[in-house]
Amino acid sequence: MSRKKNIDLEQTRLNILKVGLSLLEQKGFNATGIQEITTIARIPKGSFYNYFASKEEFCVEIIQFYTKTRIEEWENLLEAEDKGDPYLALHAAFIELAIGYECADPKTGCLLGNLAGEISEVSEDCRMALQDAIGKFKKILELRLLWGQQHSKVRIDLSAPRLADLVWDVWQGSLLRMKIEKSAEPVRNTLETLFEKMLLP
Amino acid sequence: MSRKKNIDLEQTRLNILKVGLSLLEQKGFNATGIQEITTIARIPKGSFYNYFASKEEFCVEIIQFYTKTRIEEWENLLEAEDKGDPYLALHAAFIELAIGYECADPKTGCLLGNLAGEISEVSEDCRMALQDAIGKFKKILELRLLWGQQHSKVRIDLSAPRLADLVWDVWQGSLLRMKIEKSAEPVRNTLETLFEKMLLP
Repeated sequence: MSRKKNIDLEQTRLNILKVGLSLLEQKGFNATGIQEITTIARIPKGSFYNYFASKEEFCVEIIQFYTKTRIEEWENLLEAEDKGDPYLALHAAFIELAIGYECADPKTGCLLGNLAGEISEVSEDCRMALQDAIGKFKKILELRLLWGQQHSKVRIDLSAPRLADLVWDVWQGSLLRMKIEKSAEPVRNTLETLFEKMLLP
Repeated sequence: MSRKKNIDLEQTRLNILKVGLSLLEQKGFNATGIQEITTIARIPKGSFYNYFASKEEFCVEIIQFYTKTRIEEWENLLEAEDKGDPYLALHAAFIELAIGYECADPKTGCLLGNLAGEISEVSEDCRMALQDAIGKFKKILELRLLWGQQHSKVRIDLSAPRLADLVWDVWQGSLLRMKIEKSAEPVRNTLETLFEKMLLP
């Protein structure tokens, strides 16, 4: 196959992933149809299966694509906010995220949390992809919380992995409430509760 | 209409709700089909619409039915555990819930959290039913946390409603991780983090 054809296939594949991600963020896995994806991506419906073996495999790739993209954004944000204090940068990055949610319409929240509720029981492949993705995000949290503990900025009566679990869980819970209340107030309040009260030494 | 016929209709309706709830807990809203519900409930497919105007209205009623049932169970559990300390009863009731999740297979988690991720953006009626349901659960938490604050068992640097938000959010987040990790360890750890560390004065 020629190099140009390979690049074209890769671009189409990426386009389908982007369209699929946008639909999955808004409507979830089951309400998103292949027909809708292919119509928006402007490809014949049948050709979807040239790129992905099944809708389930497609969803696994969407989870990986979302995770890679968001972790890059997250790392860039953390780097931009880092003024020699990786823990302060974590707080600042969360504030940036919350500001983003403030403006977002619709407030889709986190794809990982939304899919966890919807498909953990019905697709083992998707469940494992979600587990892997969340592990990556929690590792970022854990390292910065550990730094905070080592520099007397974070309580030390709980391990950094346990604190990372807390931050991840409460963040996901507040994102669900954001969707239900149609307001970013739950995520703003959660940040205040965590960083100004619960995580302090 | 005769009294007997009314009772029959009400029993069929209740049966459809129970079947629907079980399916929605496992598979979510979109993956649950009317055909599947009516087959398990042993009624003709078309007659579903004698009981519910639409699948969306059905989902609203499932949310209300789930909330009423769970709140009754929750209140009974709290009452059984209450030995003159409503806050201690709250902790004990959560431990009971966690033990239940330990044994549950599949680990469906909380219908409200699962649906929040899946349908908040697509059904305004369901979103409002979820908001109403969560408000009821949070009120129970809030009153017992307030009692704990008034009796020096719970920290007072955050209001009881704010602490209720924290407990609700972290619980929902840990239920999502329970589904993803196929283990009740996240909910056990969350209870320990909350009741033995974060909520203390």
